[in-house]
Amino acid sequence: MKGRNDILNSCIFCKIINDELESKKIYENDYVLAFLDISNDADGHTLVIPKKHVRNLLDCDENTMQEVMKAIQKIMHHYKSKGYEGFNLICSNEPAGEQSIFHLHFHIYPRKSDDGMRVFPKLSNSQHTLEEMCEFLKLN
Amino acid sequence: MKGRNDILNSCIFCKIINDELESKKIYENDYVLAFLDISNDADGHTLVIPKKHVRNLLDCDENTMQEVMKAIQKIMHHYKSKGYEGFNLICSNEPAGEQSIFHLHFHIYPRKSDDGMRVFPKLSNSQHTLEEMCEFLKLN
Repeated sequence: MKGRNDILNSCIFCKIINDELESKKIYENDYVLAFLDISNDADGHTLVIPKKHVRNLLDCDENTMQEVMKAIQKIMHHYKSKGYEGFNLICSNEPAGEQSIFHLHFHIYPRKSDDGMRVFPKLSNSQHTLEEMCEFLKLN
Repeated sequence: MKGRNDILNSCIFCKIINDELESKKIYENDYVLAFLDISNDADGHTLVIPKKHVRNLLDCDENTMQEVMKAIQKIMHHYKSKGYEGFNLICSNEPAGEQSIFHLHFHIYPRKSDDGMRVFPKLSNSQHTLEEMCEFLKLN
């Protein structure tokens, strides 16, 4: 079974945090690092990650969550000052949720009204009615 | 110019919070409401919103942010207990970022490994190199 040290030693985002791998850094503080997504699929596509290794939103503690969200908001305001007009924020969790690197990361896509991009998904996959799903999923 | 009361009176998510409009509620506490997205584009597609009217991530205060993220994590754990294996979290900000209702909302798409959905965007829109964008956007 993989121990915690094995995970930290093999996690590429931990390597980026530790400067063992190069990245295009945008912002850094004691808790959070932000850098450009290497895919370069859209100008300014940024990843925001906690320096503490957590897998995703399912195991992220409250303090880490708070620091990550504060950094995300700070970066959005900064990008707005650079001419961007809107933002998509995306976080994938677990393989079934299309997560491929198992260190919590939020994607920021900075947007302009004339960029011609479509980031929000267009789906038609429901098998059940809203009533059925509400009955099944409601929490309180 | 629109005043704060005009905004609150016309915001459909505020109306849902105040039970002036019906919704399929999943979870509610003093700060947050979660309900199924009326589009029903995917089973269990859920919106998580703060009860306090904020426009989006650009004007969301720290306490509201914290309560919203706590509720998101709670709902994901609950959906996991119901058989879902992964989650996409999406938040659109401003018209340029494809926001259409101007009350902060996070979309949760619960996922299963065999659901055949693609939620993460597939883009090839960059006009600049990572080096150019890093130079332009870096914050510190």
